Amino acid sequence: MDTFTAIRTKRELREYEDRTIPQGVLMRILEAGRLAPSSKNSQPWHFIAIRDKTVLKALSQTTPTGAHLAQAPLAIAVLTENAKLPEVDGARAMQNMILAAWELGVASCWIANFDEAAVKKLLAAPEHLRLITVVPFGYPKEKKVKRRKIRKHLEEIVHFERFGQKNDPYAS
Amino acid sequence: MDTFTAIRTKRELREYEDRTIPQGVLMRILEAGRLAPSSKNSQPWHFIAIRDKTVLKALSQTTPTGAHLAQAPLAIAVLTENAKLPEVDGARAMQNMILAAWELGVASCWIANFDEAAVKKLLAAPEHLRLITVVPFGYPKEKKVKRRKIRKHLEEIVHFERFGQKNDPYAS
Repeated sequence: MDTFTAIRTKRELREYEDRTIPQGVLMRILEAGRLAPSSKNSQPWHFIAIRDKTVLKALSQTTPTGAHLAQAPLAIAVLTENAKLPEVDGARAMQNMILAAWELGVASCWIANFDEAAVKKLLAAPEHLRLITVVPFGYPKEKKVKRRKIRKHLEEIVHFERFGQKNDPYAS
Repeated sequence: MDTFTAIRTKRELREYEDRTIPQGVLMRILEAGRLAPSSKNSQPWHFIAIRDKTVLKALSQTTPTGAHLAQAPLAIAVLTENAKLPEVDGARAMQNMILAAWELGVASCWIANFDEAAVKKLLAAPEHLRLITVVPFGYPKEKKVKRRKIRKHLEEIVHFERFGQKNDPYAS
């Protein structure tokens, strides 16, 4: 699947089939995260792959918006260590993983709002690490994702040369 | 170019040909950003496309690590407005743009450390917006990017089920 198609078609999906993610697929997803760029190439991240149903269920109770974690066959936690730009670096790595997964037919849905201390306790993560997210992954239940993406129009968010300039002076 | 290949081959490059980015390529890059996911689909971003050489040069002087901005034919600034997760949402949008650009042969290199007030003044951006980054884009001078990516080994950054567990209990 070409990159733009992956970007264009990817949906955040919360319902997954009761089907294991093959080892090779998991390793490919993690590799996409490993290859991500980061501030001064510091690679300040740890990725924890979680497939234990008990842990996934416990994780789902550490956030008000993560019920789907309990149904997922896999979740990947991203934590950073001594990062200069923890959210930026962590998000770039996870966005790589999400797109690489989607190319392989695996959906995901970013979750925020975690009780960070509770997550770190469940994952035995050292206190000084910073939790960026725990993202569930799984084969989507919906086979045909028909819904159009709901997004603002380009005109609402794109400016040329300076904020508020909507006409592109370089357009021919 | 398939998604994993884009992720695998992409380099952060700082030297660009003196060659304009065609309008269609720019719009495709911006579209990849527009389609990014965000917290509660809030899409809290503004993208400012900058091609004016004088502004690019002035921008390069607002950061100690952005000299290459002055040589780029294009830069895209990402600013967020009322975002719950500004860095995460902004980074996911920019990572989409960076990968979509790479697929079209256009390189980039993330810059941080901006004098935010100076950038906002140059771009006439309202005070309450938050600057995430200004990323230069251009066709790479190096035609063959041979360098191997320097990254930590998977074993250093990947854990299974809990931090520190290096053996995958689910591997067959």
